[in-house]
Amino acid sequence: MKQVHKLGLFGLGAFGRLIVRHLAPYFDILACDPSPEARAYAKRHNVSLVSLEEAAACQVVILATPIRTLKDLAAKIAPHVPLNGLVIDVGSVKVKPAAWLQEALPPQVSILCTHPLFGPQSARYGIHDMEIVVCPVRVRHLTPIVRFLEKTLDLKVSMATPEIHDRALAAVQGLTHMIAKVLSGLEPLPRVHTTRSYDLMMQGVGLVQGDSDELFMSIERDNPFASEIRKRFFAEIDSLRERLEAHRQAD
Amino acid sequence: MKQVHKLGLFGLGAFGRLIVRHLAPYFDILACDPSPEARAYAKRHNVSLVSLEEAAACQVVILATPIRTLKDLAAKIAPHVPLNGLVIDVGSVKVKPAAWLQEALPPQVSILCTHPLFGPQSARYGIHDMEIVVCPVRVRHLTPIVRFLEKTLDLKVSMATPEIHDRALAAVQGLTHMIAKVLSGLEPLPRVHTTRSYDLMMQGVGLVQGDSDELFMSIERDNPFASEIRKRFFAEIDSLRERLEAHRQAD
Repeated sequence: MKQVHKLGLFGLGAFGRLIVRHLAPYFDILACDPSPEARAYAKRHNVSLVSLEEAAACQVVILATPIRTLKDLAAKIAPHVPLNGLVIDVGSVKVKPAAWLQEALPPQVSILCTHPLFGPQSARYGIHDMEIVVCPVRVRHLTPIVRFLEKTLDLKVSMATPEIHDRALAAVQGLTHMIAKVLSGLEPLPRVHTTRSYDLMMQGVGLVQGDSDELFMSIERDNPFASEIRKRFFAEIDSLRERLEAHRQAD
Repeated sequence: MKQVHKLGLFGLGAFGRLIVRHLAPYFDILACDPSPEARAYAKRHNVSLVSLEEAAACQVVILATPIRTLKDLAAKIAPHVPLNGLVIDVGSVKVKPAAWLQEALPPQVSILCTHPLFGPQSARYGIHDMEIVVCPVRVRHLTPIVRFLEKTLDLKVSMATPEIHDRALAAVQGLTHMIAKVLSGLEPLPRVHTTRSYDLMMQGVGLVQGDSDELFMSIERDNPFASEIRKRFFAEIDSLRERLEAHRQAD
């Protein structure tokens, strides 16, 4: 019989639960989350709730807590992580967490920063062929991990440095979330007499509309390239508005 | 042998050509368009180019010229349209053209205002199951027309008054075009490490990016409900910007 590895999971929020759903067949999951919601969820889904020390002592540790908590959490788990262990984060920004984890964790601990480019909404029918960005910040054995992600979980793995990741995602997530916030504010919007272009946009909006404001704000705050794309977005908006104003007055 | 009706087509622009492609099997098309591009196109596609009088004298007349030209064009064709004829427009706004056509054309002439909710981009693989909004402004025999659109052209017909149409499309087209303009201004945008939400939005943008600035500006100018949705769109943008600014300063 194959040995089942213990996996320490920090955070049983929306994404932590997606992790439980897809990794429970392969790992013995020991979760750490002090919230009452997590307690209720763990009971219903037969997940073991353990102390910070116990979760951190697992061979594989996944951090699925909000980005603002990661720096402190890294420092707290550092004394308990096994020296040949692997710590993985799954947040939407990578430059800052990569630096925090490298600083806090002993050099013998492997660090894999990842960003699964899907969430509870887009993965509600499964994660087949979904993309996960992998930043091998400090990893001893990368090949078996990538093989597990690709062959076992059926994900599409793309590699990037934290910088390349954050630069791309500042636009990808920043723009979708900003547009989704604006369109949500305009509801009720038409559902009949619509164009294909509009339907596609609204489908796109629908996939992020359920994301927390916390996620949006942490992308805007913690992605070092977010402010640049935000400024350019608002500058384009301003020039469109001016053009429409000038046009209206010319009539 | 079935009698082939003559169809007078005004305008051989992008949409006029889509009309030729899909109606040439059913009608003898006589087109009127003074531009050199139309001459070259007509020669290549074996379309007869005729005078305004000759095109207007057809049993069925379709106006596929820019919205700003419609009022004058309606007045010019009025003396030549047969009294039991049918005049159809296909533009993106309906309230103003419906009024112009009713004013200019003799009461015996049928008027069908339509808005095919597709264009050269979204219909590049065919028009099967695409939607066309039909406003029966003043039509004697509506049933055979709807049957032709549904059974022969395989379109999905939805009925609306010009007001209901313009109210819905002010949001549907106004928002997609404004967002497409803004995102186009931000190119080059990421094509790797993207989310499903972003991919859908960019697909939506791609379908209207090729539309003319003329189309966008005429929706903004000639749809009586466009200014309201535009104001609300920019107000939402402003409140998002303020929220992000406040958040940034609070850090």
